[in-house]
Amino acid sequence: MIALSGGVGGAKLALGLAHSLPAEELLVVVNTGDDFEHLGLAICPDIDTLVYTLAGLDNPETGWGRAGDTGACMAALAALGGETWFFLGDGDLAMHLERTRRLGAGERLSEVTADLARRLGVGALIAPMSDDTVRTMVRTTAGELSFQHYFVRERCRPAVTGFHFAGAERARPEPRLMQALAEGTARGIVLCPSNPFISLDPILALPGVRAALATTARPVVAVSPVVAGRALKGPTVKMMDELDLPRDALTVASRYRDILDGFVLDTADAALAEAVSAMGIEPMVAATVMTTRADRIALARAVIGLLDRLRAAP
Amino acid sequence: MIALSGGVGGAKLALGLAHSLPAEELLVVVNTGDDFEHLGLAICPDIDTLVYTLAGLDNPETGWGRAGDTGACMAALAALGGETWFFLGDGDLAMHLERTRRLGAGERLSEVTADLARRLGVGALIAPMSDDTVRTMVRTTAGELSFQHYFVRERCRPAVTGFHFAGAERARPEPRLMQALAEGTARGIVLCPSNPFISLDPILALPGVRAALATTARPVVAVSPVVAGRALKGPTVKMMDELDLPRDALTVASRYRDILDGFVLDTADAALAEAVSAMGIEPMVAATVMTTRADRIALARAVIGLLDRLRAAP
Repeated sequence: MIALSGGVGGAKLALGLAHSLPAEELLVVVNTGDDFEHLGLAICPDIDTLVYTLAGLDNPETGWGRAGDTGACMAALAALGGETWFFLGDGDLAMHLERTRRLGAGERLSEVTADLARRLGVGALIAPMSDDTVRTMVRTTAGELSFQHYFVRERCRPAVTGFHFAGAERARPEPRLMQALAEGTARGIVLCPSNPFISLDPILALPGVRAALATTARPVVAVSPVVAGRALKGPTVKMMDELDLPRDALTVASRYRDILDGFVLDTADAALAEAVSAMGIEPMVAATVMTTRADRIALARAVIGLLDRLRAAP
Repeated sequence: MIALSGGVGGAKLALGLAHSLPAEELLVVVNTGDDFEHLGLAICPDIDTLVYTLAGLDNPETGWGRAGDTGACMAALAALGGETWFFLGDGDLAMHLERTRRLGAGERLSEVTADLARRLGVGALIAPMSDDTVRTMVRTTAGELSFQHYFVRERCRPAVTGFHFAGAERARPEPRLMQALAEGTARGIVLCPSNPFISLDPILALPGVRAALATTARPVVAVSPVVAGRALKGPTVKMMDELDLPRDALTVASRYRDILDGFVLDTADAALAEAVSAMGIEPMVAATVMTTRADRIALARAVIGLLDRLRAAP
């Protein structure tokens, strides 16, 4: 099973999948367009959200960082006049320090990620979408901003006009993803309920990924990140408004129409199932709001069931 | 007033001097031979000991790091399989992160040091002995070791056979030191009670420093780091033994005989005063064991008094 994921929403479904499949059967391919260098450290927000969530170390209140982490370093940094707009907890810093050190020593991000996740007890394989650098740039009415400047420093305030994934055209996608798509060996592929513009589009922008998803022998499904016209977290709906797109799940389904065999709508959006069908995509209605661990596992099992049905279909 | 200093012992006297002189009159020139890159960070142990001590943030129990600092990052790093033999507290990490960032942005170590010290409320000027990289290498019976590998990782266990200050021959000494020595403008120069081999020798190994100290118009004094045949902290006496040097204050005085006008012996070593005199160096006996802040100020005032007497002498 392959999951394509951004941060929080994707991590929730990935946790459910990790509890529903043998560990070695799950490959989570994670957006790295949000990655950036800060304070000299290589920071990979979505990878870390996946690693921490699957390791049971995540902070459910923030959606980033570690539960119960302290901020002694940031407090001291403030006293030194350093940059503190991007908060890094004391325990979380270890991840960035060690990753930066190992990348500097010549290891690939995928190696470092797999090893650090394993050391924290994660059984599933978490892989960056590419070992090559891709940087999401956000085009706004206030000019082009690097992703974290838009997202954290400016708190998504500038109105979005478009996106650019710098480096995507030269980046080599995760080879296990490409091999599984080419050989049709995955049980299925799920696009997690992540922001389509800034979490999934960067993965799909890598050379060959979208075409391979469109032509792979195995089913591809997506779980809508939009429920009843609202995003559970983050600026998905704000971006839809600013881009003059209808703020509903159908916008997501139509965006990925060329690659989707199935689409999971929340029960609140059951009325949209017919429109999904009309796009030639199999709709499934399920409870997609994942508050508890049980919710995550239930949704994961529903997604696996949908993939299995689609795979068995003629 | 100029003080040449290593870490803990030097910082104690520097604190006393800082409380005995107008802030702008004290320049502390600090050994950087102990500096190293670790976890991708530029770490300057002696500079930080000086900064923390003069800022009142020092940890008197360890002699390094910050009082009351926490270790969440190191604990998390251990879980990731990272290197934890060199402990970096969470608050202390801010210093290394910010220094590394600013050096990477092209600032000189002296600029960064002065600014960070100022932000922590230090009035005296703390300057690295050079903005150029010098690395103390310790020759031992177990081979040559970089300083921190010898000092922290191997806990000074290998027997020392010599030292090498890599880069010293090409390093430019702190210009304010050289200018004050050349122009004879300092009230005096004190070699703090620091380890002669690994704290003071690196400074004296910089091009022109020793000759300038020998010829400057202003008095140069040293405070013995050895009291009654023992060092108050660190491996000074162990090194003397391994180098077949007598383990007493006279070894220090004779080592710096060419540059010293005065030498401060502890009251426990009053009997050595005559031998110091016989070297052509003015001895002074004082309480050099600085346990309390009052001890530090009293010794600093005694040193200032000695320098003033030597300057006034014909």
